[in-house]
Amino acid sequence: MGGDHGPPVVVPAVALAMERMRGRNLRFLLFGDEASLNEELAKAPAARAVCEVRPTTLVIGMEDKPAHALRRGKGSSLWNAVEAVKNGEAHAAVSAGNTGALMAISKLILRMVAKELDRPAIVASWPTLRGASTVLDVGANVSSDATQLVEFAIMGQAFHRAVHGVARPSVGLLNVGSEEQKGNEEVREAHRLMRDGGLPIDYRGFVEGDDIAKGTVDVVVTDGFSGNIALKTAEGVARFVRTLLREAFTSTLRAKIGAVVAAPTLRKMMDRLDPGSVNGGPLLGLNGIVVKSHGGADARGYANALVVAADLAQSEYSTEINLNMLRLAEVMASERESRE
Amino acid sequence: MGGDHGPPVVVPAVALAMERMRGRNLRFLLFGDEASLNEELAKAPAARAVCEVRPTTLVIGMEDKPAHALRRGKGSSLWNAVEAVKNGEAHAAVSAGNTGALMAISKLILRMVAKELDRPAIVASWPTLRGASTVLDVGANVSSDATQLVEFAIMGQAFHRAVHGVARPSVGLLNVGSEEQKGNEEVREAHRLMRDGGLPIDYRGFVEGDDIAKGTVDVVVTDGFSGNIALKTAEGVARFVRTLLREAFTSTLRAKIGAVVAAPTLRKMMDRLDPGSVNGGPLLGLNGIVVKSHGGADARGYANALVVAADLAQSEYSTEINLNMLRLAEVMASERESRE
Repeated sequence: MGGDHGPPVVVPAVALAMERMRGRNLRFLLFGDEASLNEELAKAPAARAVCEVRPTTLVIGMEDKPAHALRRGKGSSLWNAVEAVKNGEAHAAVSAGNTGALMAISKLILRMVAKELDRPAIVASWPTLRGASTVLDVGANVSSDATQLVEFAIMGQAFHRAVHGVARPSVGLLNVGSEEQKGNEEVREAHRLMRDGGLPIDYRGFVEGDDIAKGTVDVVVTDGFSGNIALKTAEGVARFVRTLLREAFTSTLRAKIGAVVAAPTLRKMMDRLDPGSVNGGPLLGLNGIVVKSHGGADARGYANALVVAADLAQSEYSTEINLNMLRLAEVMASERESRE
Repeated sequence: MGGDHGPPVVVPAVALAMERMRGRNLRFLLFGDEASLNEELAKAPAARAVCEVRPTTLVIGMEDKPAHALRRGKGSSLWNAVEAVKNGEAHAAVSAGNTGALMAISKLILRMVAKELDRPAIVASWPTLRGASTVLDVGANVSSDATQLVEFAIMGQAFHRAVHGVARPSVGLLNVGSEEQKGNEEVREAHRLMRDGGLPIDYRGFVEGDDIAKGTVDVVVTDGFSGNIALKTAEGVARFVRTLLREAFTSTLRAKIGAVVAAPTLRKMMDRLDPGSVNGGPLLGLNGIVVKSHGGADARGYANALVVAADLAQSEYSTEINLNMLRLAEVMASERESRE
C-alpha cells in the first residue's frame, strides 16, 4: 500500500520482476487492500500465478512519524509484511512506504544484528564509470564509531556480492585524503582495524569523494552524516546538469536542432546518471531482509527492488554477515584483552 | 613561483586582472625569480606598469611537507609574500603554491583570528542554478564544534558579501534533514546559536546536500570533513557527466552529427558546471587576507584569484569578521555565565 502509487505499481512490478527472473522459483505475498490488489491482479495473469493476497485494512501514511507508526501500526500492510519475515513465512520484505516507519518497525520486529548499530544502515547503488558502486551508510546512523564503520564494510560487501555478483568486492573508506594521518579518529581507527584485523575484507584503504563516481572501489564505507550529504549533493549536481542541458538546448536555433538530432543519445546519458535507475536498497544490519523502494518508483523501479530482495534471499548474504559480525566481535575482544 | 606554471601564468594574469578591474587603484608585488619575472614583464607592458619585483631565490616545492616548509621556507617567495601582508606592505597575498605550506606559513605569520580555529578554513565557490554559493569549510578543520561552525558562518557571509556584492547573504547549515531534531550534537547546537544568539547573520536553518546546487542559500556552512567529501563528490559527478557526454556523442553517426551542431552549447554548459571557472578561495580565519589559487590554474583562473583578493582587500571584509567574532565571543561568554 506504500509509496505514491500502491497496488497499480506493485502488481505490474511483480510481473516485470518475474520476466527478469525467469526460471527462478519465487512466490509473493501481497499485504494490503484486498479489493484493489485483486483488481490489479485480474489485469496481470503472470503476477496472479505467483501471488497470494494477505488482506490488511490499516495503512501507515507517508507523513506519519515513526513513533506513531510503532504505537498504531500493528496490523498494517507494512507491519505484517515485516512480521512475515520474522515468522519465516517470507524470506524478504519489500516496501515503498514511509522510510522512518519501515525502519522503526523493522528494528522492533527483527532486531539489529550487532549492538553498535542504532538503526539499519541505508545503501545507495551509485552509478559510476565502471557500473555501480555500493555506498553506505547514506543517512541512518548520524555518528559512527570505528566498529560501526567496519560493520558497514561487512554488510556492504555482502550486499555487493549478492546483488552485483562480484566474488570479492573491494572496499574503501571515505576520507578527506588518502594519506595515513588524514581524517578524524573514527576513520583512522576503522582503517587500522580493516587493514590489520585479519577480517575477510578486500580493503583498499582511504578513498576520496571523487573516487565514488570513478568506481575506484566496489564498496564505499562512510558514516551516515557524510554519506547522506554526499548522496544528496550528488543528486543535486545531477539535477543541475539536467537543468543546464535543458536550458542549453533551447537557447539558440542551432542548439535546438542539435537537441533534436542528439535526443536519443542525451536521454540514454541522463538515464545512466540517474540514481533512480538502480532502485531498491536494503535496510542493512537487521536479522532479516527488508528492501526499501523509492516512494515515487514506477513499476520498472519497483521490479528492481523485488529483484534485489530475491537476490539477497537466494544468496549467502545473511549467513555471510552473521559470520563476519562474529569474527569482528572476536577481533574487538582480543583488542580489548591486549590493552588490559 | 608556485603552481604548475609560475611566472608565465602569474604575469599575464596581472594584465588580465587589471583589464577586469579598470579604474581601480592596484599595485602588485611579485615575489620570485628575478630573471623569469622580468622576462615575462617585458612581454606584458600593462602588467609591468603596476608590478614591482621582489627577488627571492628559495622556492617551496609542490610536494614539500608543511613541517619542512615551516623549517626551511623562510625567505622563499611564498613566505615573503605572506610576510608582506603582516608588515602592511601588501593588503593581500595570492599564491598557487603548495596548499599545506601556504596554510602552515600563513598561520604562523598571521595567526588565527579565533582560538577555536585549528587551521584556516577553505571556501568553495559552488556553481548553482542561481549563480554561485559559498560553501565552507571544505577541508581544513576535520572536526568542528558548534562555535567553529558559527565562526564559519561569520567568515562565509563576509566573503560572500565582499566578493559577490550581496548586501545580506543568507546562511544555511548543512545537515541530513531539515527538521529540528536531525543531525549530530554539533550542528544542532550551532543551529540554536545562530537562530537565538542575536548575531547579525541572516540564518535560514538547516539545508541538505541537494540544496547546494539549487542555490537555496548564499552561504552553506559545514564541518571540514563533510564539506570536503561533498565538494569532491560533486567534482566526481561533474567529471562523470563530462565522460558520459563524450561517450554519448561519439557512440553513433547520428550522435556525432548532433555533437557537431550542439558543440558551442555543450561547451558553454560544461564551463558553467566547472568549479574551476570560479578559481580563488581565501584561507579564512587569518589576521590578513591570503587567497589560494588552484595549482593548475591558467592566466584567466589566476586573474580571478587576484580579483577575489582585491575585492576582499577593498571591502569591509576583515573589519566585519573581527567585529562579529567579538560579538560571538560575548554570546558564548554570556551562555557560560547563565549555565553557572
